Amino acid sequence: MEVMAAAAAADGFRPLDEESLVEYIKATPALRVQLGEQLEGLAVKEVGDGNLNFVYIVTGPGGSFVIKQALPYIRCIGTSWPMTKERAYFEMLALKDHGRLCPNHVPEVYHFDRPMSLIAMRYLKPPHIILRKGLIAGIEYPLLAQHMSDYMARTLFFTSLLYHSTLEHRKAVAEFCGNVELCRLTEQVVFSDPYKVAQYNHWTSPYLDHDAEAVRDDDILKIEVAGLKSMFCERAQALIHGDLHTGSVMVTNDSTQVIDPEFAFYGPMGFDIGAFLGNLILAFFSQDGHANKDNDREAYKRWILKMLEETWNLFHQKFVALWNENFDGHGDAYLADIFNKPELQLLAQKKYMTDLFHDSIGFGAAKMIRRIVGVAHVEDFESIADESQRAFCERRALDCAKKLLKERRKFESISQVISVIEEISAR
Amino acid sequence: MEVMAAAAAADGFRPLDEESLVEYIKATPALRVQLGEQLEGLAVKEVGDGNLNFVYIVTGPGGSFVIKQALPYIRCIGTSWPMTKERAYFEMLALKDHGRLCPNHVPEVYHFDRPMSLIAMRYLKPPHIILRKGLIAGIEYPLLAQHMSDYMARTLFFTSLLYHSTLEHRKAVAEFCGNVELCRLTEQVVFSDPYKVAQYNHWTSPYLDHDAEAVRDDDILKIEVAGLKSMFCERAQALIHGDLHTGSVMVTNDSTQVIDPEFAFYGPMGFDIGAFLGNLILAFFSQDGHANKDNDREAYKRWILKMLEETWNLFHQKFVALWNENFDGHGDAYLADIFNKPELQLLAQKKYMTDLFHDSIGFGAAKMIRRIVGVAHVEDFESIADESQRAFCERRALDCAKKLLKERRKFESISQVISVIEEISAR
Repeated sequence: MEVMAAAAAADGFRPLDEESLVEYIKATPALRVQLGEQLEGLAVKEVGDGNLNFVYIVTGPGGSFVIKQALPYIRCIGTSWPMTKERAYFEMLALKDHGRLCPNHVPEVYHFDRPMSLIAMRYLKPPHIILRKGLIAGIEYPLLAQHMSDYMARTLFFTSLLYHSTLEHRKAVAEFCGNVELCRLTEQVVFSDPYKVAQYNHWTSPYLDHDAEAVRDDDILKIEVAGLKSMFCERAQALIHGDLHTGSVMVTNDSTQVIDPEFAFYGPMGFDIGAFLGNLILAFFSQDGHANKDNDREAYKRWILKMLEETWNLFHQKFVALWNENFDGHGDAYLADIFNKPELQLLAQKKYMTDLFHDSIGFGAAKMIRRIVGVAHVEDFESIADESQRAFCERRALDCAKKLLKERRKFESISQVISVIEEISAR
Repeated sequence: MEVMAAAAAADGFRPLDEESLVEYIKATPALRVQLGEQLEGLAVKEVGDGNLNFVYIVTGPGGSFVIKQALPYIRCIGTSWPMTKERAYFEMLALKDHGRLCPNHVPEVYHFDRPMSLIAMRYLKPPHIILRKGLIAGIEYPLLAQHMSDYMARTLFFTSLLYHSTLEHRKAVAEFCGNVELCRLTEQVVFSDPYKVAQYNHWTSPYLDHDAEAVRDDDILKIEVAGLKSMFCERAQALIHGDLHTGSVMVTNDSTQVIDPEFAFYGPMGFDIGAFLGNLILAFFSQDGHANKDNDREAYKRWILKMLEETWNLFHQKFVALWNENFDGHGDAYLADIFNKPELQLLAQKKYMTDLFHDSIGFGAAKMIRRIVGVAHVEDFESIADESQRAFCERRALDCAKKLLKERRKFESISQVISVIEEISAR
């Protein structure tokens, strides 16, 4: 560790704590400005509950912000799993790119310090909470589908070749190739570890022992997941968030904010859409574990399914609308001179959106599976204290994911996906 | 033009001619060495017959080499179509990467001068000729399929995620993103211009006027080509040559050398395989135009079809053999811990090779179409003096390409492709 500390000092990095952070703030004009130069009486609180980083809320009489610092390892595992702190640089890039495209749903960046791997950004004040916690608590967010479809349609469309020239696209792709270590983490924990015996895999044992083994022995599933993994590794379709689960979204009744894009890179759009939809399905299957005599959660389950349906359908509608608005723009994928008739444009869009739908279902299902038999689980299930009940919920989610993943090319609409969920839920 | 010359001087670039090249050689130790330091009596001959660059053969009493210099425009069009001379850098990188992987079929690089966009490489002495010219002359090359399958299997396998870790892959992908201008040229001339009214398009008129129009009005074809274009722009599957037609191959009876990889980048493997196969099919359909009373070319046509069949089948066999040899290596796509049974490996390989076959047919067909109704045609047809006869040959090639492209997913073996060719040829 001494060697590490010395190396850290040499590259200008030092891990902060609540005390040294205040000194850092006082020495940093961009942060002083955010506090209205009122530097007395600052409150600093470490709140990082994610898997990777340290997060501080800083509030003072004249302003507030959040400081996020990446350390050169994975926080929830410790120094034994090193992880480049350069991820903060890519998180900042993605926050700025996506923030420019969708300012209503991405917090503003105030300051970035690359040697310190430190980002200062807007503090999302209470009553903002992590969406996952809201879903566990059974809270309905009336604008969720509207906002998330807006975020996904805008960030994905405007960073794809439907809008980009290939010149700007390849330049951006090259830059984000630098975030390879975070991509490799996803490759391992989403596409590889759940399908083999791996050190950090765990599940609700002994209940799901057979289910986990069945995943490792399912040849068709493994072939399909390998196809998705290749797409993740090879296909630079758009600048994706890369970790768009319900823990990366903060919500109130009328605000939806997407945070933590440190896994961002140019990858397949379906990975983002699927992450969000797949985590909604996990939330759905966890509800029976949160039901009690006051609330059977049946109405809430219907609301989650409604969100699933609306999110995809609104995404579809908004994405195609952006495409129509920009059909004669500088996007290189479908030139207006070639796709020169409305019926031909329609045909092209139908094929594109169908492929994207199937990709989204596949990636979403893969993200569900890894949350049940892989290293990192979700609070939706983990907070169900009764292990037998938890396993019951998890098994249904797992069965649903396997079916969706293998049969994804058959689905023509989100309502067909919902039918599968309802069918498994009624067993 | 004066402004251009001044800018050129500032970045260290000056276009050479036969005279100034000799001075350059005398001042360059690496080149002097290749000539055994015997600098008197050098013969310099400009031989560039390609579309883009200047090429000089330099021979002296103590040695020889070829000098290739890229100028900041496309040679066959002129200064009105500017093109980055940085392409020489990517050509050098690809010659070195592919040369390391397949030294028997790639000429050695002796010297590279980045400011001058100049590569010195092995002179492929007579009787080496451009394969396309050999095919027009009706010459059989007994080792062609053996050599080309070797080149393609080795260069593609070892630069894919079947061999690469994603760490080395993304690093290499990022580097070759810099060759975007050459990619854009391909996007335009292969995937866009043939499907719209475009300045430089031409065809054997008036015979093929209706055929060219039919290409521009074929909705299904346009949708399929757009899918291939997206794959070309988004999918970093392996380091491909990028222009692997029969004009990029030099041959003798026992030597096969692949030259001119200035279009190289990380793209879909099928683009290389398809380019070679597609250009063999063009050669096939051109034979009737080269038949005369002494030689009806029927035996030669059968030989071309045999090459087509053997090239794919040997490629398939060698590629899978390399995969088997490296199954427990560091390639990230199919981990040995997951694909842990011979029958599962077989299943994965079958799916991978089937997809690759379909991609290759699609790209090959797209390359055929663009040679008939796009900007750059092939000598196979251009050398048929009788325009009506030429159009007859071209129309058959075009009909074949359209059928292959649209129906490619139905084909299970190269012999089925050959049946289509024979059927159209027998009309």
